[in-house]
Amino acid sequence: MEFMDRNFLLNTEYAETLYHKYAEHMPIIDYHCHIPVEDIANDVHFRSITELWLGADHYKWRLMRSNGISEDLITGNGSDYDKFLAFAKSLQRAPGNPLYHWSHLELQRYFGIDTPLTEANAREIFDRCNAILQRPTMSARNLIKKSNVRILCTTDDPCDDLKYHKMLAEDLSFDVQVLPAFRPDNYLDIEKPTFAACVQKLGKVCDWAMFSLSDLKDCLTERINYFAFRGCKTADHGLPYVMYQPCDDETANAIFRKKMDGGAILPEEAMAYRTNLLSFLAKQYARVGFVMQLHYGVKRDNNTFMYIKIGANTGFDCIDNYTPVTQLTNFLNSLALTEELPKTVLYSLNPIDNAAIDSVIGCFQDGSAAGKIQHGSAWWFNDHKNGMLAQLTSLSELGVLGNFIGMLTDSRSLLSYTRHEYFRRILCRFLGGLVAGGEYPADISFLGSLVEDICYNNCLRYFDFKPAK
Amino acid sequence: MEFMDRNFLLNTEYAETLYHKYAEHMPIIDYHCHIPVEDIANDVHFRSITELWLGADHYKWRLMRSNGISEDLITGNGSDYDKFLAFAKSLQRAPGNPLYHWSHLELQRYFGIDTPLTEANAREIFDRCNAILQRPTMSARNLIKKSNVRILCTTDDPCDDLKYHKMLAEDLSFDVQVLPAFRPDNYLDIEKPTFAACVQKLGKVCDWAMFSLSDLKDCLTERINYFAFRGCKTADHGLPYVMYQPCDDETANAIFRKKMDGGAILPEEAMAYRTNLLSFLAKQYARVGFVMQLHYGVKRDNNTFMYIKIGANTGFDCIDNYTPVTQLTNFLNSLALTEELPKTVLYSLNPIDNAAIDSVIGCFQDGSAAGKIQHGSAWWFNDHKNGMLAQLTSLSELGVLGNFIGMLTDSRSLLSYTRHEYFRRILCRFLGGLVAGGEYPADISFLGSLVEDICYNNCLRYFDFKPAK
Amino acid sequence: MEFMDRNFLLNTEYAETLYHKYAEHMPIIDYHCHIPVEDIANDVHFRSITELWLGADHYKWRLMRSNGISEDLITGNGSDYDKFLAFAKSLQRAPGNPLYHWSHLELQRYFGIDTPLTEANAREIFDRCNAILQRPTMSARNLIKKSNVRILCTTDDPCDDLKYHKMLAEDLSFDVQVLPAFRPDNYLDIEKPTFAACVQKLGKVCDWAMFSLSDLKDCLTERINYFAFRGCKTADHGLPYVMYQPCDDETANAIFRKKMDGGAILPEEAMAYRTNLLSFLAKQYARVGFVMQLHYGVKRDNNTFMYIKIGANTGFDCIDNYTPVTQLTNFLNSLALTEELPKTVLYSLNPIDNAAIDSVIGCFQDGSAAGKIQHGSAWWFNDHKNGMLAQLTSLSELGVLGNFIGMLTDSRSLLSYTRHEYFRRILCRFLGGLVAGGEYPADISFLGSLVEDICYNNCLRYFDFKPAK
Repeated sequence: MEFMDRNFLLNTEYAETLYHKYAEHMPIIDYHCHIPVEDIANDVHFRSITELWLGADHYKWRLMRSNGISEDLITGNGSDYDKFLAFAKSLQRAPGNPLYHWSHLELQRYFGIDTPLTEANAREIFDRCNAILQRPTMSARNLIKKSNVRILCTTDDPCDDLKYHKMLAEDLSFDVQVLPAFRPDNYLDIEKPTFAACVQKLGKVCDWAMFSLSDLKDCLTERINYFAFRGCKTADHGLPYVMYQPCDDETANAIFRKKMDGGAILPEEAMAYRTNLLSFLAKQYARVGFVMQLHYGVKRDNNTFMYIKIGANTGFDCIDNYTPVTQLTNFLNSLALTEELPKTVLYSLNPIDNAAIDSVIGCFQDGSAAGKIQHGSAWWFNDHKNGMLAQLTSLSELGVLGNFIGMLTDSRSLLSYTRHEYFRRILCRFLGGLVAGGEYPADISFLGSLVEDICYNNCLRYFDFKPAK
Repeated sequence: MEFMDRNFLLNTEYAETLYHKYAEHMPIIDYHCHIPVEDIANDVHFRSITELWLGADHYKWRLMRSNGISEDLITGNGSDYDKFLAFAKSLQRAPGNPLYHWSHLELQRYFGIDTPLTEANAREIFDRCNAILQRPTMSARNLIKKSNVRILCTTDDPCDDLKYHKMLAEDLSFDVQVLPAFRPDNYLDIEKPTFAACVQKLGKVCDWAMFSLSDLKDCLTERINYFAFRGCKTADHGLPYVMYQPCDDETANAIFRKKMDGGAILPEEAMAYRTNLLSFLAKQYARVGFVMQLHYGVKRDNNTFMYIKIGANTGFDCIDNYTPVTQLTNFLNSLALTEELPKTVLYSLNPIDNAAIDSVIGCFQDGSAAGKIQHGSAWWFNDHKNGMLAQLTSLSELGVLGNFIGMLTDSRSLLSYTRHEYFRRILCRFLGGLVAGGEYPADISFLGSLVEDICYNNCLRYFDFKPAK
Repeated sequence: MEFMDRNFLLNTEYAETLYHKYAEHMPIIDYHCHIPVEDIANDVHFRSITELWLGADHYKWRLMRSNGISEDLITGNGSDYDKFLAFAKSLQRAPGNPLYHWSHLELQRYFGIDTPLTEANAREIFDRCNAILQRPTMSARNLIKKSNVRILCTTDDPCDDLKYHKMLAEDLSFDVQVLPAFRPDNYLDIEKPTFAACVQKLGKVCDWAMFSLSDLKDCLTERINYFAFRGCKTADHGLPYVMYQPCDDETANAIFRKKMDGGAILPEEAMAYRTNLLSFLAKQYARVGFVMQLHYGVKRDNNTFMYIKIGANTGFDCIDNYTPVTQLTNFLNSLALTEELPKTVLYSLNPIDNAAIDSVIGCFQDGSAAGKIQHGSAWWFNDHKNGMLAQLTSLSELGVLGNFIGMLTDSRSLLSYTRHEYFRRILCRFLGGLVAGGEYPADISFLGSLVEDICYNNCLRYFDFKPAK
């Protein structure tokens, strides 16, 4: 196979047909991303490929650090070109890294550049990209439209007034739905020093005094209702693991009060509090129809030296391997018991959890929706070819692949819609492989309909999105 | 490759030869299954393909729930045809699921139907299957004979009088050995509310008063002897994990007495009690020559809402990820130290345990038998193509594959002998792949003898079965 | 593909070119092995292939035990030929086991024997090997030279006077560098009964009274300096897991004193002590420029019955599955915080840790070296084709493969340099596969330079070895 040509990753005729006839033209719903909504509202342009590629992408920063590049040329004061060159050199030494594919997909799709980036041609590609970036077609909104995105969900604190979402909803010149997603981590992470300030800030937004946990719950409920009013369809949580340390309201409130009064919170108190509040929130999601996304299996901010220097979300997180199935199932069970388990998507950062998750979701499916409980797409450190294949394989072995809601970008970058293409090629490779191997009948039109479902239709139905604006 | 034809899963010429020349015609020993022995004794017939397929198969129930089918059409009052149709629709959306292969193997081998089942042809296939099911050849005994089964082991509580086993042993018209297997979970699961009643029932069977744990041990020993007398060759245990919490007889008896008197048992007490009793039983197995099978890595009955509605073993179990190697090895070591470790087969439901298990079994092998400690075949949520390949691959990398005792069905269904065929095809694919890849010499007659060993001979020798009745 | 021919494991044209043009001729640096240095100093010869193959190789012993061979023919008094025959029979039944490949690579490269070893030809091959072993070319030094080894690091207790290393360094007739590596396990394993005696022995070597932990640290520091003077570039540690139980010097000293006075050490005390001392040592390594290798994920001596009979390192160890990422990252973080984290290589014996490790190392990379923190090559129970591919795949997905320091033997055998060949073939297979699959450009000269780096150059640079003597 030629390097990343038209049939990139499509290693059977069936895969080619499924991709080019069915997957390629389906619109995109990016139901979880980290694009700043104001960038879309303001329809920003980018100064250079360095700003666009290296301005906020901790995947690329990690790659460069692994290549011994000094921090100056990563997050420091190096020039745009020096940084780009340092990245090009690092990338070339990284065969097998998904950044190799993502970067070249972006060069191909958005800049029309088919040549592999090397140290030797870095200058030429840098200049060419920067020239192209000056074009009006390369604004935030145009990049989104060019990418065939219909709906995208940003990630928003309950405090957020969603004014940009309102503005975009009312802007008839831009027909992509930009919806908020509810991300209340700040109110669950009671071990963090910033907790009390966040609670107080939310109190101000709601014009409500935060005396007790019950006040916090009231405010969060109000914000859930407001988010729903602004079109929100989903909440997202970042958790170290899905915990279940049952804790009554009185105890949880005592922990809350202790923290608000400046006390120190023990790890088991934090988990008890988190169980109480997340249970409450989950029931609210069930009430308003939000999909609950749970991202877990992560240990964050592992390098204190660098944290002090450049802060959070800068490339110092890792996979955690403490993700007890017992607590996960007990948590879901506690909600199912009272019929208040919302639609739920589980994502563990640890790829060894795949089979366990797929066996867990099967315990909580019911007649209320096809695939009510989902195993989320391979994520973060796993969103490479093998990681995606492993998730698809495991899900197909233990569940009904045809009901999968498919890909999301989880990205801060406006170019990363090519990851949907990447995913779709891998999906078609997987299904094409089953047919070529005699494991599924060569009923391509039926398989094509499954592909279209996984690329778009399932997601639309599952989140209850409304396609037209 | 064509869909599930003669060379299904056989992707090299070597694999084809190994399968068709060596594996295909070997008889079957199904050394662990859940077929009710009375169904064989009574030579039952089945009303419909729905009764046969969906009457007791929680794999299929899970598949349907994952497709959003309402419980009425799964375990409820739906008509036979409506249930079958709902299953057909679900199956079609599940490429990559082993049920796709198992169901079609069953249609091919027992009903002569080669057409893939779809929503469109569900009616036709339903009717055809039901017509065929009326034939005398489709009775329980005839299905077993047609499947080339020589020996099968059911799963039996120590209380069981084994009258059906006796009846079958004496019935000269049926030349398949149907042997009991000793499954004393009820006497180890001290945390369960049913524990005391089970103990009392066993006391009645043995006409013995159950004052102490020592009484229970005496009764279990008597039953082991009785099972052995009825031809039993193996005991099977279902454990959350293989525990080792050393506990002397006095302490274990105190825990036993507490439970019998209605007290609440702490988790650590349950594990201590289990360690004491399982150690005792293991030594008995060593004495009488039973193979000890340990199935673990399971978390059961995760959905209390459904448990209340429809009970246990209905599709709400999952893989657990707490399976500490330390306790597993310490348990085996404690038995090996006094030379009382029986032949043992380890099965974890968590596929990530493969390499650890294969490294553990190597620590307890000795000159008393080739492959004294076995890594059991890929099981339950893992008995699909990739799960079996992963188990075979790991076992071959760390052990001597040629001594593997191979496949079992672990099934409640009389049609699931096709899973032996499935396993054999995968085994031949694996070995053929080694030869085709230049990793093992093309000495097909030697490899063929290994295939025959893994399909049948090893099992016969390992369990000490006597082939002729 | 033919059985183990010139293109063994090279399944694409690209792989063939990368191997034969770039990898094959690179010299070897074996930066971690267990060859006894006196065997090299004394330039030993071997009596027979049995002594060479089965004299000290617990991989082969395990294989034989798994085949039911009696211990007499493994570590007992059996004749050389009977043992060899028993091994040949066992090996033949073990398709997929890396011993199959290693043994045949050794027969091919050192004995010119291309025929697969079988029960039938065991006598002939035994005799032929033994005849060849009498030749002068088959001495320890000549085997090393023939294998194109430039540098090798043995494994040495801090007590060792390194007289053989000195002798070899001064011997102009032997131009391979034989360097010591610092292995202070005996001073960290405070739970072991031999601890106090080891400490006292070290005290004698240093002529220093061991009153406190601070005395031990002083002595270890002195030995580090001495090892560095003798050309040592690396320290190696065997740990159950990488622990982090912070413990101040006073507490650590109290634990040390308790043990030296004959007290019993609790598991948590052992881990606290280990954290304190390993932190101290790591900072010393950072000071003198040693690479710190951490081997973990192992549970040793699991079979007490056999331990009593034949001692440690005889084939009764296994993979452990308790390897908490939290403690690993906290340990590394504590060193990075004060800028005293040395270059570090992490090896877990549990293959399921691959992705977690690759995500962890990315948190501690910096501009001081390309690939400062390394994920070590697949090791012990994982150094087979699939284990190596899994490590390479995971590392490439989450890091910069081009900076990998590559293979080591970790072996007691003088023939095991063929494992470098094995690794190189697998590396070229991996990279060739990326090109053939259209996932990396067909820039073979650049990829060839990466191959050369991974085979040799990276290692030279990383450890700061000096190539010429």
